[in-house]
Amino acid sequence: MVKTRLKIIPLGGLGEIGKNMMAVEYGEDIIVIDSGLMFPEEDMLGIDLVIPDISYLLENKSKIRGIVITHAHEDHIGALPYVLPQLDVPVYCSKLAKGLISIKLRERKAELQSKLNVVPPGSQFTLGRFGIEFFPVCHSIPDAMGIILQTPVGTIVHTGDFKIDYTPVNGAPANISRLAQLGAQGVLLLFSDSTYAELPGYTPSERVVGEALDQIMANTPGRFIVTTFASLISRVQQIIDAAAKHQRRVFIVGRSMMDTSKIAQELGYLKAPEGVLARIDELHNMPHEKVVIITTGSQGEPTSGLVRIANRDHRHVSIIRGDTVVISASPIPGNESLVNRTIDSLCKQGAQVFYDKVARVHVHGHASQEELKLVLSLVKPKYFVPVHGEYRHLSFHAQIARQVGVQEENIFVLEDGDILELGPDSGRVTGKVASSNVYVDGLSVGDVGGIVLRNRQMLSRDGIVVVIIAVNKQTGKLVGRPDIVSRGFVDTNEAKDMLEESCNLVVKIMDHGGKHTAEWGFADNKVRTALSNFYYDKTKRRPMILPVMVKV
Amino acid sequence: MVKTRLKIIPLGGLGEIGKNMMAVEYGEDIIVIDSGLMFPEEDMLGIDLVIPDISYLLENKSKIRGIVITHAHEDHIGALPYVLPQLDVPVYCSKLAKGLISIKLRERKAELQSKLNVVPPGSQFTLGRFGIEFFPVCHSIPDAMGIILQTPVGTIVHTGDFKIDYTPVNGAPANISRLAQLGAQGVLLLFSDSTYAELPGYTPSERVVGEALDQIMANTPGRFIVTTFASLISRVQQIIDAAAKHQRRVFIVGRSMMDTSKIAQELGYLKAPEGVLARIDELHNMPHEKVVIITTGSQGEPTSGLVRIANRDHRHVSIIRGDTVVISASPIPGNESLVNRTIDSLCKQGAQVFYDKVARVHVHGHASQEELKLVLSLVKPKYFVPVHGEYRHLSFHAQIARQVGVQEENIFVLEDGDILELGPDSGRVTGKVASSNVYVDGLSVGDVGGIVLRNRQMLSRDGIVVVIIAVNKQTGKLVGRPDIVSRGFVDTNEAKDMLEESCNLVVKIMDHGGKHTAEWGFADNKVRTALSNFYYDKTKRRPMILPVMVKV
Repeated sequence: MVKTRLKIIPLGGLGEIGKNMMAVEYGEDIIVIDSGLMFPEEDMLGIDLVIPDISYLLENKSKIRGIVITHAHEDHIGALPYVLPQLDVPVYCSKLAKGLISIKLRERKAELQSKLNVVPPGSQFTLGRFGIEFFPVCHSIPDAMGIILQTPVGTIVHTGDFKIDYTPVNGAPANISRLAQLGAQGVLLLFSDSTYAELPGYTPSERVVGEALDQIMANTPGRFIVTTFASLISRVQQIIDAAAKHQRRVFIVGRSMMDTSKIAQELGYLKAPEGVLARIDELHNMPHEKVVIITTGSQGEPTSGLVRIANRDHRHVSIIRGDTVVISASPIPGNESLVNRTIDSLCKQGAQVFYDKVARVHVHGHASQEELKLVLSLVKPKYFVPVHGEYRHLSFHAQIARQVGVQEENIFVLEDGDILELGPDSGRVTGKVASSNVYVDGLSVGDVGGIVLRNRQMLSRDGIVVVIIAVNKQTGKLVGRPDIVSRGFVDTNEAKDMLEESCNLVVKIMDHGGKHTAEWGFADNKVRTALSNFYYDKTKRRPMILPVMVKV
Repeated sequence: MVKTRLKIIPLGGLGEIGKNMMAVEYGEDIIVIDSGLMFPEEDMLGIDLVIPDISYLLENKSKIRGIVITHAHEDHIGALPYVLPQLDVPVYCSKLAKGLISIKLRERKAELQSKLNVVPPGSQFTLGRFGIEFFPVCHSIPDAMGIILQTPVGTIVHTGDFKIDYTPVNGAPANISRLAQLGAQGVLLLFSDSTYAELPGYTPSERVVGEALDQIMANTPGRFIVTTFASLISRVQQIIDAAAKHQRRVFIVGRSMMDTSKIAQELGYLKAPEGVLARIDELHNMPHEKVVIITTGSQGEPTSGLVRIANRDHRHVSIIRGDTVVISASPIPGNESLVNRTIDSLCKQGAQVFYDKVARVHVHGHASQEELKLVLSLVKPKYFVPVHGEYRHLSFHAQIARQVGVQEENIFVLEDGDILELGPDSGRVTGKVASSNVYVDGLSVGDVGGIVLRNRQMLSRDGIVVVIIAVNKQTGKLVGRPDIVSRGFVDTNEAKDMLEESCNLVVKIMDHGGKHTAEWGFADNKVRTALSNFYYDKTKRRPMILPVMVKV
């Protein structure tokens, strides 16, 4: 009889979209699944990236046998350049993931090439007490994998990010037969992707988009400019195929699109017939009806190819009346207005623009409700933990699991940091590890915390007023007139009189302060409160007030 | 023969969603249509509201005969409290609009009650050379009106915000017969709502939502908590009707919901059967299956009823396992993440949540493509100007107009500020008036401009470093050590050494500055550049650097 219980510890990706990371622990062995980043939310001002808190892993460093990667999207691999130098453990992943991870590590100067191990789907390997096998799934990047973990307590299946696509553009369909076989043998626990658990029905096949792109290209009299995610290689493949069919040549523009296409070609994931791909310097000689331009900017990123084109500051391409632009992506929540501005600006210059709201130019890469039911029905897990998604997604997925017959008490809607302990017959949450957001801002990881962010928020709303008060260190009396400098608060010319008046107020306070005036706390409290009230009265704004005392 | 040409001057609402306002001018007469506000976009940090630039109207104040209001949404009436005190002209509107405008004017202490004139639909009145008639349309607020303007050059039809609803919940269906009649007589110009010109098909009737709400309520074992826009009175009516049918009592919670429901009841737009509405103090005695709570917060507004409930800081209501929450609205672009957080938090507390993505609990209030075609086909205008919407919406609407037969050269996709001059046989854009955004921030209107906003943006990203340098005014030599104070830049404890080091750098610069050190420009330039480079080197951040020199 097994005494030791399995520990499941999500470190990111539950209750949020991004920074997916999870530890699975048995006795003296820990396997980490994925190590992703999250892009900052609106209130994380100035933050570049968010990564998981790995304190628990650092405390248990000697137990970690490796990091297993499901696929090469940023929200699954993006934290590796920050995490690997600290953990120094081997990584196991697919061929494409190795290629893309290497680029990331190089960029961040965290190269550990030798430790990236490519594992082909279907082959099995062992890490400590765990047997591991990758199985192919379909997702919006090639070589996406689910994971089968054989543990002493039972079999765990992790879907990774997936959809069910019976007619994928590259790679094999998801190996659902393998899932059925495992289900028949008995599965202890299923982790399954909840990102689109809100959506009824089935997610359409990637091939649907190919048909739409082909049709638009067939009816396009001028140039065909298209943007998508650089890693959505099947989409790039379909564009190249359509271009070849319609005798157009393809120009790839934008750094990440060029980099990713290059590595995808080298590794055999992207194929272009002879003579279809062209160099950018051939562009100006081409008849418009012979041109396809594939570029970055599907999220309206300010420095991307498409946005530069839309703003007329791209070196090689500017919009010509008669151009057709296709945005073959949907905006990630938070990017809608950037994308909309780009579309507006393209329309204004006379382009015809196709985007997800008005044409079938994108399908997403995650399973909808019926696909989730299919997987649950094949795997028939005893325990179920929905992963990847905000709380409502997890909770919809839990509801779906109940509908297809998983026992209510065996479904665990976890939060990041929860420790779920599982035995063969029962499971429960027994504790919590550190799991807060770790902010990357410039060179620093983790130094920006609550106070810095709160200050940035305050500064962003109503700016700052700095009051410099010089006092005589013996007498405590004012030396000269205080200096008031503001930024982001008011138009300093128009508000000159008000700022002067507030300066008088400071003089008055200092003159009446008696022996306390030379004390730091005095200026800090009295002056701050008085000015805060004064400015609020006059403007209904609350700038940050920063009194500085100079003793001379 | 008519010599004078009509001038059409949009002052807001084209190329953006919000602050709708337009001037129609003929000779010595100007009519203004609507006077709306816009909520600030993400990059307008700290701004409360945006209103149109009315410089042109102020310059031509003596010509303005009145402001005609299509309906009482903020984006059509919200600028009145700022505009009316400056223009001092009469307003013509529906009964409900008068009620809601009065509240706004009172709040802003800009009351001009006597000048708000109620005009019933169908009756005609004259302002200068213009004959005016309101015709009823359907929209997400009762008493929405289109406008028929008889001008010496020809008839103008303005749809206002509208959808075609043959089975509206309150008020009459849009008077499409009147439009057909006008079309038969000949219409010079049509202005039509473009907000949903991207969407194919028809917008469903408001009644569809009533059926969904009724069905959810029928299957709800516990309390039924629902939020919608306060002004969507037909929705509130349908909730009250469903409550009455299912023998539940209705508690209205949240200030704007209470205010609007009250005035809607007083004016006869909202009807509740005897004994259905209840006072909040009756809530705790009610069995859960007898309760409906209607509250604010459909956009996730931080101080709204539903968000307080979700955050467990509402005075009267907190979530109980078994509650059903319905968000009967869709998030306005930009509010998605606030709404999602609210849903997540409600789910976490055990509520079942229905929202637009997962149930038919909302329909919007604007015409889709087929309705736009219907109106264009009935009105058969010679000229067409799509209004209300971002550029892509206007450009889709223009495309639709071409499809139904309006001459390409008679369609004008205008931008705010354009002056379109129209004669009976031709039209062209002849100039431009001021039309930029006017920001309301606290008490001030228009004082916050580009510099203040740019400063707020800079502060929001990497914070600020203030350097206080005291120098002897005779010798120019440093007095004491400079003071370095930062906010929103780094954790000041962790970064103590770096900040100290940067202080040494300032000392070095001042010591080597020779006779220039006492000049303001010296500190400003040398110190700013040196610190900026130093900090970027150490942190890859670019805080605002604010050197202040104190001469003693």
